[in-house]
Amino acid sequence: MYRAPLAEIAFTLKHVAGLPQVRDAYGAEELGEDLVEAILTEAGRFAAEEIAPLNKIADRQGTPFANGTVTTPEGWRDCYHHWIEGGWNALAAGTDFGGQGLPVMLNIAALEMWNSASMAFALGPTLTMGAVEALEKHAAPELQEKYLAKLVSGEWMGTMNLTEPQAGSDLNALKARAERNADGSYRIFGQKIYITYGEHDLTDNIIHLVLARLPDAPAGTRGISLFLVPKFFVNDDGSLGARNDVRCAGIEHKLGIHGSPTCTMIYGDEGGATGWLIGEENRGLACMFTMMNNARLAVGVQGLGVSERAFQHALAYALDRRQGRAPGDKGEGMSPIALHPDIKRTLLAMQARTQVARAICYSCAHAIDMAHLAATPEERAHWASRAGLLTPIAKALSTDFGVESASLGIQVHGGMGFIEETGAAQHLRDARIAPIYEGTNGIQAIDLVQRKLPLEGGAHVDGFIAELKAIAEAAAAHSDEDIKATAAHLLPALDGLSSATAWLKQAQADGRVAEALAGATPYLRLAGLVLGGALLLKGAMAGEGQDPAAEAHRRLLARHFAETLLGETAGLARDVTGAAGAILAFDPAALSARIG
Amino acid sequence: MYRAPLAEIAFTLKHVAGLPQVRDAYGAEELGEDLVEAILTEAGRFAAEEIAPLNKIADRQGTPFANGTVTTPEGWRDCYHHWIEGGWNALAAGTDFGGQGLPVMLNIAALEMWNSASMAFALGPTLTMGAVEALEKHAAPELQEKYLAKLVSGEWMGTMNLTEPQAGSDLNALKARAERNADGSYRIFGQKIYITYGEHDLTDNIIHLVLARLPDAPAGTRGISLFLVPKFFVNDDGSLGARNDVRCAGIEHKLGIHGSPTCTMIYGDEGGATGWLIGEENRGLACMFTMMNNARLAVGVQGLGVSERAFQHALAYALDRRQGRAPGDKGEGMSPIALHPDIKRTLLAMQARTQVARAICYSCAHAIDMAHLAATPEERAHWASRAGLLTPIAKALSTDFGVESASLGIQVHGGMGFIEETGAAQHLRDARIAPIYEGTNGIQAIDLVQRKLPLEGGAHVDGFIAELKAIAEAAAAHSDEDIKATAAHLLPALDGLSSATAWLKQAQADGRVAEALAGATPYLRLAGLVLGGALLLKGAMAGEGQDPAAEAHRRLLARHFAETLLGETAGLARDVTGAAGAILAFDPAALSARIG
Repeated sequence: MYRAPLAEIAFTLKHVAGLPQVRDAYGAEELGEDLVEAILTEAGRFAAEEIAPLNKIADRQGTPFANGTVTTPEGWRDCYHHWIEGGWNALAAGTDFGGQGLPVMLNIAALEMWNSASMAFALGPTLTMGAVEALEKHAAPELQEKYLAKLVSGEWMGTMNLTEPQAGSDLNALKARAERNADGSYRIFGQKIYITYGEHDLTDNIIHLVLARLPDAPAGTRGISLFLVPKFFVNDDGSLGARNDVRCAGIEHKLGIHGSPTCTMIYGDEGGATGWLIGEENRGLACMFTMMNNARLAVGVQGLGVSERAFQHALAYALDRRQGRAPGDKGEGMSPIALHPDIKRTLLAMQARTQVARAICYSCAHAIDMAHLAATPEERAHWASRAGLLTPIAKALSTDFGVESASLGIQVHGGMGFIEETGAAQHLRDARIAPIYEGTNGIQAIDLVQRKLPLEGGAHVDGFIAELKAIAEAAAAHSDEDIKATAAHLLPALDGLSSATAWLKQAQADGRVAEALAGATPYLRLAGLVLGGALLLKGAMAGEGQDPAAEAHRRLLARHFAETLLGETAGLARDVTGAAGAILAFDPAALSARIG
Repeated sequence: MYRAPLAEIAFTLKHVAGLPQVRDAYGAEELGEDLVEAILTEAGRFAAEEIAPLNKIADRQGTPFANGTVTTPEGWRDCYHHWIEGGWNALAAGTDFGGQGLPVMLNIAALEMWNSASMAFALGPTLTMGAVEALEKHAAPELQEKYLAKLVSGEWMGTMNLTEPQAGSDLNALKARAERNADGSYRIFGQKIYITYGEHDLTDNIIHLVLARLPDAPAGTRGISLFLVPKFFVNDDGSLGARNDVRCAGIEHKLGIHGSPTCTMIYGDEGGATGWLIGEENRGLACMFTMMNNARLAVGVQGLGVSERAFQHALAYALDRRQGRAPGDKGEGMSPIALHPDIKRTLLAMQARTQVARAICYSCAHAIDMAHLAATPEERAHWASRAGLLTPIAKALSTDFGVESASLGIQVHGGMGFIEETGAAQHLRDARIAPIYEGTNGIQAIDLVQRKLPLEGGAHVDGFIAELKAIAEAAAAHSDEDIKATAAHLLPALDGLSSATAWLKQAQADGRVAEALAGATPYLRLAGLVLGGALLLKGAMAGEGQDPAAEAHRRLLARHFAETLLGETAGLARDVTGAAGAILAFDPAALSARIG
């Protein structure tokens, strides 16, 4: 069972992540509080009542593959069609092709709920939304005219074809090729792997976005072009024509997200799949990055969504299951395990991770919105930098937290957690992909250190840290004891973040690239924990007195996070600046030769 | 592929965990270095060549259940019979019934290799060894005579029947019942769940050890008795007789260890299963604790074994897979990902966890051996305390590390890690049970704080910390830079452990039980990390100059551990002493009522 945590979602949007600022920029009349509430409430209902009950069935059934076709799980197709009829696929898409043009923040809040309900279900539309965005920004008007409306509505779904067996994280190694046709179209040849929803029975057509090289393209990533390759050709009247030369050769047997087919796609083994260029030749990577950046945030939201689901699952079990006597429990018989101090700690650890992931993902969505909506070019550039800085943190920290929460959730269940019927293990199996795809979390950390710290000559990150410090300083002067105590933990953590940041900037300025890279992963966690602590504190100070129990719990949760997870930061700061020597001196090949 | 890390195993036994002291106490002639080497080498060969290749097949096939019978995976039965023919089941059992009577340390080293090869395979014999020990210590001579020789040889296997649906961690809630027969035997009735290898086709008979209550037994754990219930009765000539009234009603569909059947066992639904008392009536828990304590160390070794296997798997992949250009790599084309700094960090993180788990598990085995072999009652009592102190740490830290290593190993594989065929995901699925069974790691932490800190009036743990401090101080005065740097991290971590220990002892002395329990989990990790750092440092200082590259790597690994994982200790020490307030103030039921 999943219950949409609407109060926390609405609170985080409004008081932590800055929805009022987005509303002002968007137009307060068009985005009234009533509308926001109605959207969240209905999304929560749909997620809880229609999607969530399918999650376990889909895990068991998977997506059988036979004769080139993929069958989605029982109930999946009906659910998807109800979902697109509700307009959910079109929430954030532009209004030109039928989208609702609402802020990304709202779409991300809804996406959290779709992912809590079923990560495998939510994944398909997530990729369609990315395809929509790439076409909106980069495709020629004729292509937009032909494809966008049906992708926006969800009548068709979209895919993203990057990976090949030899080209995973390194797109330089891409081999799929494209040849020019006389009519301006292209013939595409090659094999793509790990293509999410590459083949399925949810929609009549599937629109593949495919990276490939032209014969005369420069080597490396400056020679990659992006093509639109429909499964079925689309006639000028919008009806479907013949089948294109693209097929699914098989699906993967995966640890989790069994309801989401992961396909090997073969392009052009009968003479060439016909495709159309998106954007300019050899500039495909820039187009793909449009998809990828937002996909990274969307993957972060998967971590958030699963973390919330696992937390609710564990909380319900812990209130129901009775074992032993908790100290101080005045009840009869055995105590609910939720009253044992160690289980209380575990539940708080899960909820703190969930709430931090929510605050960071929503804040990242806020920055993306402001990068489009802010009044001046300077402000828009500022928010674009902020979105750039927050995206790798939102992706990596939230997905790590998703895995950690799901694993803690199994632990709360004891032996039951290891039994598949319980459902707790599925959360871990599903969540485990999120730190890997859309750029592994290691690559997110490298992106943060190598591309985001230097933004605005290094000034952007300093400004960001100064904002967090202002929160901590306001909290230190607060009258509430929980808030003051939280600030007392956050201030030294901020100092650690400042000095680690300065060290990394200096290392890169000095050309000590390997040293900086060796510290990237602990730096991302350090930055994410400090940001998370500051955002929880901001929420703890933001109560309006409407729900005293909820506000007291937010203060307690901020304090708990500061007293436990924030304790990692002192070590992480030293790790970033001090551990490179031993890491770089390590010779893995020599070690391997010495084993056995 | 698995290669037995014989050099590290032998080094750790000898230079870190104290095998020479055990050898002296055991008798140096009977336990020559040649014999030790021969045992380890042959165990490594058997594990790598005969067991390891079955691990993935077993994961895929599981143990189908039909008509009350369980079929083990392809090759399993032959492998088991080769394994017992090699005498491996009898390694540590007493010599009276055919055991080799070798030190526990050697058995644990071999057990590491069985678990690296296949945790699901190793689990069955682990339980048989527990049953052997319980019978050796507590059973009447007639029972020993009838059952022990065949359990020692492995011709029959043993099981451990504690858990019932309502009685998991809390054995007070046990309901299975026993009634006295006129001939001195008993009739057993009840349902037991999660019975590992409760039914299978590896051996002709299965000897169940079952906890149940007599009609006139006191309530709670002081009213539990232990019974031996054979699947088939054993005639006086040793041949098998009729089937007993015990049957397997089904097996669980689990996240991992698919090769190990987890059974629901029904006793007595056709008039009563016949059983024989082990030890005294109502004293069954004491007998069961004999099994459980050693089983806890054995479960820790599962974490160790899987961690080593996952590490080797990831290392091999990282040396083979090429993506991008690592800084400073002078080779052609893309670099092996093992050369990227972030992957080097990850591999070291896995190996450091593995080596710490090994050092702690072997040290615990050393304490168990010395508790039996030491010359004086005072020394034996000292080592029994030490074994008591180390057991929860060995169990919980090693199993947490097993899960962490397996998860890091998936990450090293990128997208391939999520594909089941790769095998990396299986390590995580298998490892995930180990923090749960034989007492969850939360219960281990509570055991450490509530039962082990007070040992010898609190003096034992202080002596233990003083020993670790002596290692750190010797290292601080060492000439080697890596060793000195490691000591510089370990000394403040030891101070944190000392003050957290003192705080917990005081809290319990003051009757602040809930506060102490709230800090138990971070305390166990704090103690384990500090112990691990000290043992790595001991190994780093112990080189004999025979293998300079291996010794240099041990220094590097100790330093890496100190610069990364030991960084958690400052936060953990503050967590133990400072986080109880918020945890105990948390009201899970009220929170649940506020969601959605």
